[in-house]
Amino acid sequence: MNKVFFDVGISLDGFIAGLNGCSKNPLGDGGLKIHEWMFKQKAFLSHLKLEGGETNNPDNEIIQAIFDRIGANIMGKNMFDEGEANWPAEAPFHCPVYVLTHQKREPWERPEGTTFYFTDGSIEDVLKKAKQAAGKKDVRISGGARTIQKYLNAGLIDEFSMHIAPIIMGAGVRLFEYIDKSKFSFEINDVIHSPLATHLFYTVKNTV
Amino acid sequence: MNKVFFDVGISLDGFIAGLNGCSKNPLGDGGLKIHEWMFKQKAFLSHLKLEGGETNNPDNEIIQAIFDRIGANIMGKNMFDEGEANWPAEAPFHCPVYVLTHQKREPWERPEGTTFYFTDGSIEDVLKKAKQAAGKKDVRISGGARTIQKYLNAGLIDEFSMHIAPIIMGAGVRLFEYIDKSKFSFEINDVIHSPLATHLFYTVKNTV
Repeated sequence: MNKVFFDVGISLDGFIAGLNGCSKNPLGDGGLKIHEWMFKQKAFLSHLKLEGGETNNPDNEIIQAIFDRIGANIMGKNMFDEGEANWPAEAPFHCPVYVLTHQKREPWERPEGTTFYFTDGSIEDVLKKAKQAAGKKDVRISGGARTIQKYLNAGLIDEFSMHIAPIIMGAGVRLFEYIDKSKFSFEINDVIHSPLATHLFYTVKNTV
Repeated sequence: MNKVFFDVGISLDGFIAGLNGCSKNPLGDGGLKIHEWMFKQKAFLSHLKLEGGETNNPDNEIIQAIFDRIGANIMGKNMFDEGEANWPAEAPFHCPVYVLTHQKREPWERPEGTTFYFTDGSIEDVLKKAKQAAGKKDVRISGGARTIQKYLNAGLIDEFSMHIAPIIMGAGVRLFEYIDKSKFSFEINDVIHSPLATHLFYTVKNTV
């Protein structure tokens, strides 16, 4: 059975993006700093068809392992809008991406395997489609925060990972807000650290 | 040279205590859950003169190592008030504790080595006294959040540790608020995890 997970970079004070994020300010004010550890890694850069980057360290291996498990993505419309303006033509997914939106739009096929499907289905129905598309691989709830929270509150997340950068944002978009904590508990699966970030892996025990 | 550090239990969503904390509701609504991992450990229980608890695991060893390094404590008045109503007669510090307050009060000596000193000195002056009292050991800024933030913003913290419980509080007292992030950066020192909690150790690089 394929799993449903989310994977986020986060600051020490709990922000996964800065304030004022939009297509001209991707990840919001100061938000790029949260992912600085990732931008240095070969697995990330090569996903964007860029050269260089570090290899043979836990950070790089973690990124590679996460990319390798993804068979389909689900994202909110805001995240898509930010990405559409900033991703290269070869959008960095290389598998189907379901965009939650009421706006009707034909599927948008990009080079190198990414196709965006625009849907106003329920989050449950979209997940069913994504699971089917993912085959034996897993489904990533890509973001943003509100989309992750919806899936978490609906009891639809099996696992998640967080990469804590040792920085203070002070303000921005929080991951853990609007969460109905009565619906699940978390178990610590694994923790790996490097000088750049601390990688935490949790399993969700849903009670709904 | 003795070091100045803080050490906190924290929820996954960044809270070190619940809402409505007071002497009749220590650690606030749901706040005890943040420290559940600790209440199971022998090093913690024996510090409170209680029997039992687990041994020979990283959680217990971490608590013991933290207790062992403390030569003096500094705390805010709210934390003291909560504790005064709830600590046993043998208050769980076993060394001098400086309480930041404008209220005048004679030193309060407790059995087993804890003496509370009440002072309205500047945070710098109180720290000087605490360092002297600590001898070769370290000074812990015990809390609460506002007291830790004051010392952090003043560039007076050398190190800190956080113990992340895999729980969502939803509301409460945040550790990382009101922080002037321009004044320092953090380096990851060490990370240790168990099934109960993730222990993160950071060094503060002050730029002030």
